[in-house]
Amino acid sequence: MRLATFCVPGAPAQAGVITPDQRVFSLEPAGFKDLLSVIRGGWTARAAIEAYLRAANPSVSVALESAVLLAPIPRPPKLICVGLNYRDHAEESKAEIPATPTIFSKFSSAVTGPGAPVILPRNTEKPDYEAEFAVVIGKGGRHIPAEYWHRHVFGYMCLNDVSARDFQMATSQWLMGKTFDTFAPAGPWLTTADEIDDPHNLDIEMRINGEVLQSSNTRNLIFGVPQLIEYLSSVVTLEAGDVISTGTPGGVGFARKPPRWLRAGDEMEVTITGLGTLRNPVVAEE
Amino acid sequence: MRLATFCVPGAPAQAGVITPDQRVFSLEPAGFKDLLSVIRGGWTARAAIEAYLRAANPSVSVALESAVLLAPIPRPPKLICVGLNYRDHAEESKAEIPATPTIFSKFSSAVTGPGAPVILPRNTEKPDYEAEFAVVIGKGGRHIPAEYWHRHVFGYMCLNDVSARDFQMATSQWLMGKTFDTFAPAGPWLTTADEIDDPHNLDIEMRINGEVLQSSNTRNLIFGVPQLIEYLSSVVTLEAGDVISTGTPGGVGFARKPPRWLRAGDEMEVTITGLGTLRNPVVAEE
Repeated sequence: MRLATFCVPGAPAQAGVITPDQRVFSLEPAGFKDLLSVIRGGWTARAAIEAYLRAANPSVSVALESAVLLAPIPRPPKLICVGLNYRDHAEESKAEIPATPTIFSKFSSAVTGPGAPVILPRNTEKPDYEAEFAVVIGKGGRHIPAEYWHRHVFGYMCLNDVSARDFQMATSQWLMGKTFDTFAPAGPWLTTADEIDDPHNLDIEMRINGEVLQSSNTRNLIFGVPQLIEYLSSVVTLEAGDVISTGTPGGVGFARKPPRWLRAGDEMEVTITGLGTLRNPVVAEE
Repeated sequence: MRLATFCVPGAPAQAGVITPDQRVFSLEPAGFKDLLSVIRGGWTARAAIEAYLRAANPSVSVALESAVLLAPIPRPPKLICVGLNYRDHAEESKAEIPATPTIFSKFSSAVTGPGAPVILPRNTEKPDYEAEFAVVIGKGGRHIPAEYWHRHVFGYMCLNDVSARDFQMATSQWLMGKTFDTFAPAGPWLTTADEIDDPHNLDIEMRINGEVLQSSNTRNLIFGVPQLIEYLSSVVTLEAGDVISTGTPGGVGFARKPPRWLRAGDEMEVTITGLGTLRNPVVAEE
């Protein structure tokens, strides 16, 4: 099932389900005001949506191309990021292969949707891209053993961990370079976990203006989804709607010779097998 | 004005105002369901509360000692932390005096209230305390010049930046050591900015079981509130209810010889001039 947050002209944002024939059905008549309430609803919510879809008249849906998709979860409770989690990216960053996951965060205020502009701050000279595979937590919990990871995953989506390298590296802590407004595009929709046979065997790619700059596969993750869920939940209570962005493969801009910084006018595209393509134009801050 | 989030037996949490005679008036009859809505309401909300207090019958209030105070803002939109922001703490941490503020975060899920137990995780051997002076944003904004800082500050409170040093130092990023559940006690209430003549001249103290372990003054902050607001808002849009915890002075546990780690049974007390005392017992995770 592909779930989205979307709006149509003259109406507020709402939760929707995208059907295989590329139509979007609002989930408001099914009793869901946003995707967080679907995620919190678990299997009961999923069953209610399936029943609703069977009965719904196609005339109440809109064509996917006429809906404006927003970030599936506009304000996740936590936006957890993993650093240096692909072997080739750790190497290009001159970092050792880590024994413990390197965890940082973005504020949820950085989240933006597919198609929305990523705004290049006027005070950075080193804006960069990072294609990432993001996991959305369904059932929350603390001290979750790795082998039960699948009970806690609601679904997956693409995420672009946009980074201002000068702010990221100005001090020991990366947060400021990671959390500028619009620096966390996510989407284009949220694919439920049952549609992905193996989350550790998905091609992941970043194209800018059509050129492939990152190309890898989630089998190259150093810490996979089970290990991340076990580690993170040994520290914090994971909650429905929390997003874990699992890290980026090699090929980012700062590691290129010469560096390839983002420029106004660029179009970034993150594509992951089964999860669609997250496109965002890059614009200069006014 | 001292504002609190509180509950009384059998009722859900609500916003309240604490009067000089140590009584708590619920703000629900004044139309405020929580403190975030008061903060977002700005001066209009303040005026409404003052009018309500003038007319309210004292019989609708409860004695402060019979109210259970919770964290003033149980889930701040952002919980922003500043590292190495007192000269003596930077020195005891063997860090250089920074030219740029070192910013990290805790997830809002770490927030807990006065009197609530801080739970020592079973997987850390180095739990530590940090008394901090926290600023609560009123009017939000981006690119706020330092000289307009006071237009954006709603008030102040005590915060304890509890830290698991082994998790904090396991990788380059501090987040995991900072954001365990219950690692951000805040309160005991929120004092509005007009009650504090000079936020850069407040004594700040941490006592554990009555022993003074940290004792400094906010005049020793390397980056003051105006500089922090200017810097942070050059990166993110600050929002009503965001919390900026400005860093801790010298005397933390890991820098002592021998180190003084938190132990189950300890009682921590953060006291700041004009902001009250934030007390939290330390208990072991079950």
